[in-house]
Formats: sequence, C-alpha cells, structure tokens
Amino acid sequence: MKSEREIIKELKKIFPKGKADVGIGDDAAVYKDLIFTTDLLVENTHFKRSHPPYFLGRKSVNVNISDIAAMGGEPLFVLMSLSIPGKLTGEWLDEFLKGVKSSCEENSCTLIGGDLSRAEHIFISVTAVGKTKNPVLRGTSKEGELIVLVGELGASRAGRETIEEGIDKFEKLRMAFLNPIPRVKEARTISKQATSMIDISDGLIIDLRRILGGKGAKLYENSLIPSEELEEFCKLKGKDPLEYILYGGEDYALLFTTGEKPQIGKIIGKVEGNGIFLGERRVEEKGFDHFT
Amino acid sequence: MKSEREIIKELKKIFPKGKADVGIGDDAAVYKDLIFTTDLLVENTHFKRSHPPYFLGRKSVNVNISDIAAMGGEPLFVLMSLSIPGKLTGEWLDEFLKGVKSSCEENSCTLIGGDLSRAEHIFISVTAVGKTKNPVLRGTSKEGELIVLVGELGASRAGRETIEEGIDKFEKLRMAFLNPIPRVKEARTISKQATSMIDISDGLIIDLRRILGGKGAKLYENSLIPSEELEEFCKLKGKDPLEYILYGGEDYALLFTTGEKPQIGKIIGKVEGNGIFLGERRVEEKGFDHFT
Repeated sequence: MKSEREIIKELKKIFPKGKADVGIGDDAAVYKDLIFTTDLLVENTHFKRSHPPYFLGRKSVNVNISDIAAMGGEPLFVLMSLSIPGKLTGEWLDEFLKGVKSSCEENSCTLIGGDLSRAEHIFISVTAVGKTKNPVLRGTSKEGELIVLVGELGASRAGRETIEEGIDKFEKLRMAFLNPIPRVKEARTISKQATSMIDISDGLIIDLRRILGGKGAKLYENSLIPSEELEEFCKLKGKDPLEYILYGGEDYALLFTTGEKPQIGKIIGKVEGNGIFLGERRVEEKGFDHFT
Repeated sequence: MKSEREIIKELKKIFPKGKADVGIGDDAAVYKDLIFTTDLLVENTHFKRSHPPYFLGRKSVNVNISDIAAMGGEPLFVLMSLSIPGKLTGEWLDEFLKGVKSSCEENSCTLIGGDLSRAEHIFISVTAVGKTKNPVLRGTSKEGELIVLVGELGASRAGRETIEEGIDKFEKLRMAFLNPIPRVKEARTISKQATSMIDISDGLIIDLRRILGGKGAKLYENSLIPSEELEEFCKLKGKDPLEYILYGGEDYALLFTTGEKPQIGKIIGKVEGNGIFLGERRVEEKGFDHFT
C-alpha cells in the first residue's frame, strides 16, 4: 500500500503545472491572481454520522477557506460535491446547508456550483476559489528566520477523542474539532511579512516540514505549552500533551516564517540547521497519512 | 425524501450568485472570463468497482470538460478529490491516474490540485476551470428557433445495461458508457451561432427542458432514429429504442438552439408553444433524479 505522501509525490511528477503559476503541492494552486483549493471530508474517515450537520456544513467550507487564507488570499466562491443517503435529504440536509451558508456569509463568499448524488455514505468535496496579488507559498522560508504560530494546537484531536469516547466535558476542545474557524484576517496581516505560510491541518511537525522544505528548525520548548483544557484532558486520559501539540491535526492554526519582528502570533522557534529539534531533542517527523 | 430538482431549486434560493456572473443552475458558473464546474462519480451509483480504472479516470475528467465545452469554453485546469479503499493505491490508482492524464492531455489542461483520502467506497469529485469570452447559457432559447443535436443518444444507457447484465457484445454501446468523449471542438463551433447550449448528461428530455426554460418544443419523429447497435440491443432485450433516446443519460451529446442554419449537427425540432411534443404526441417529462 502506498502512502499519501508517495502518491502526492507521484502526482507532482505526472501533472506539470501547465498554465498555472503554482500547481500540486502547496495549500492551493495559483493562476494569475486567482487561487484554487479542494478538500474532502469522508464519513468514518474525517467524521462520524453523529457530527452535527450544521457544523459539518461549516467545517467543509471552512477548511477550504483556511487554505485560501494560508496563501494570503481572500475567498471568492466555493463549489461543492455532496453525496448522501436518500434519508438525509430532509432535516439533515437543511441543517447542513445552513452551516454552509453561515460560513459563506462570514467569509463574504458564495456557493456557485455543485453536484449532488445518492450514496451509502456521506462524502463532501469542496473547491474554493480565492483572490490574491501576492500568494505566500510553502517551502520558501530562509535560514535564521523566525517561526511563528497563530492559534492553539492539539485541541481538535483531543476534542475528537472526547466525542468518540463520549466524554461529556471539554466543550472548547470539542468545538475546536466540530467547528474550526479559518483565520482569514490574521492571514492577511501575516501575508505582509511572511516568507512562507501554511495552515496546520495535518499536525505541527508535518506542516512545519512543508514550510521548511529541506531546511531544519529549532523549536523553543517553553513556547509549546498546552491550554488549560488540553492539560486537564491529558491528565484525565494519562496522555502526554506534547503528543497532541506536535502531531494533532485539524487545528487550522497558522504557521509562518519571517525575517521581521512578527506583528501577530507567538514565536515558537527559528529556521536552523538540519532536522527538527525541540530544545536539544530531535523530534520524530511522523504525521497523519491516510494510507499508512 | 426530496428530489434532486427540489434541492437544486432550494440551493438557488439559498445561495445568491454574489460576485459571479452566473451561479448555480447552468452547466457551469461564470466569473469574469472564467468558468467553473464540478461533477461527482460515486461507486455503486455512477459506476461499479469493475469499471476499468483507466476509463474511470478519463470519464471523471471528461464529464467536467463536457460541461466547460457546453458553455462554449476552453478547459484550463482540473482539481480532483479522490477517496479510495487502501488496497486500491497500487495498480488501480496507477491506471486511474493514467486515464486522468490522458484526458488532461487531449484537452490541453492539467491537474493543479486535489485531495486524497481513504474510504470504503470510491468517490471522485472533479472541478474543472475553463475560459471563455462569451459563455453560452441554458434557458436562453427563443420561440421559432431550431433545436439541433450533435452526437448519438441512448448508447450510454444501453452500454451500461450490457455491462451490468454481462452481455458480451455491443462494444460501441459499452464504450459510450465507459469512455464518453467531450465534444470540445464542436462546442466551439456551435458557440458562434447558438442562443443556448447544454451537454446531455441526464437525458434528452430533461436537458431539453433546461435549454427551453418555460417554453415548448416540437421534435421531429423521423430525426430521432436509433443507431444500428442500439436497435439491435433493443430488439434483443425487447425494449423500445425511443425510451433510450429520450431518457437515457450520460451520452454527452450537445444540444443547442439557433436562429441560423446550423453549421454542424442534425435539426431535431424547433422551439414552439408549450410542452414538449414528438410529432403530435406530448412527451412525458421524466428524467433521472438521484433521490426519487
């Protein structure tokens, strides 16, 4: 079985970028002043049927808006492919569409197209189109630059676990998983000074690797502190919060590099040497892969 | 259970077109000189696991290219969301991607983005981006204009049935279902004289209704003749070929209206009165709906 990373590597080889300015492998593709991205949410892989449909509608749009934001872009439109079992065409679909609409409105964009089909399981694919004059890419950071984080890490993964295990507290963690909010405004500010940027969807370490390219990083130990709720959750479960902070995905925090004093966010390290280090300790570069 | 048509009607109300020039409800959406469309192929709804992956890859791109063509546009890019079972990441995926690549190359476009995930069933959503200065819409035909068809009807549905029933002949019908070819060149010619155009994906009558808007049509009986293969297939199965011609979908033939002498295609009727008539007989306006 091939890994997701291997497949994406192959895809980059098979499909040259053609008339596009940026093709496969960044947060989004770029053509002239437009940016394009697509994200998939699949039942039983990304969510359970019990995910409230209103929040699922919001999340399916918001994770794409987050990719547009991470390029320094402004959202324009979304298109959606949706397949659902026939029995969900009533209240479930109404709530789902309310969620889609609320996210579109919050981000000044609209749904301009889509396709709808019946299936045994819920599949949602959204394509978002955005606009930017100066896209901020991945992999373009430079040695010595600061690594800056905007947002909290680990909450979404912990929230997912509270839901799956039926733990009836940790509202903030749960909402971080159910209803992530794309940081469009912050990303616009960041884009003025960032040399590279990404939204953390697969986990800090795997996404840091993406903005580092082949370079290394030194992360500051005391900068990666769990939130009160995450700490309490980890105590209850006997888990290490650092595991959630380094490898938990779907937080949609923003990670960027800059040679300047950052206008927003928390400095968590700098681009340096080879490998990724947390203090003196080398960090294992593992991350979520759909096929391994 | 709501019908697909009801849901799309609701979507048009919920989502205004915003900054777009054309929103939900046409072959594709339009923004400035760009057009956007998205189409979904779901296992067990649109195809079976036995559909050769090479042709499935081609079809998933080609049905979107056909929508771009039906707006009079030129394809630029595609984005793809794909979810597959882990065991298909080897040979199946290689063949599938070969198919995607071949269609991209034939249509001078490329894959610029996507998302990949594991799932129990195959789910393919493609978004295509195209370019046009003068998009040809649906519903903009005028009373008295000619209705013109480019391509054959009914072959794809008959082909699907030959496969499902394991009938080992009718190669042309089978390939019409497995490997439909978008009529990009013909559409460019048509776009110079058409007042409205659509690619027939859901069946002649349902798609004719879309280009008629609220108007009526008279179809000429002797213009809707089955191909030799379709006739032979229907004889074998004891079916009425007209049922396949009027209601069989997925042929991706082009249907357009014009006030001029058509440069290509076959005149099959004219825009006239109310209701759709075949000769003197009123035609039932039924068509494929995913949810009814």
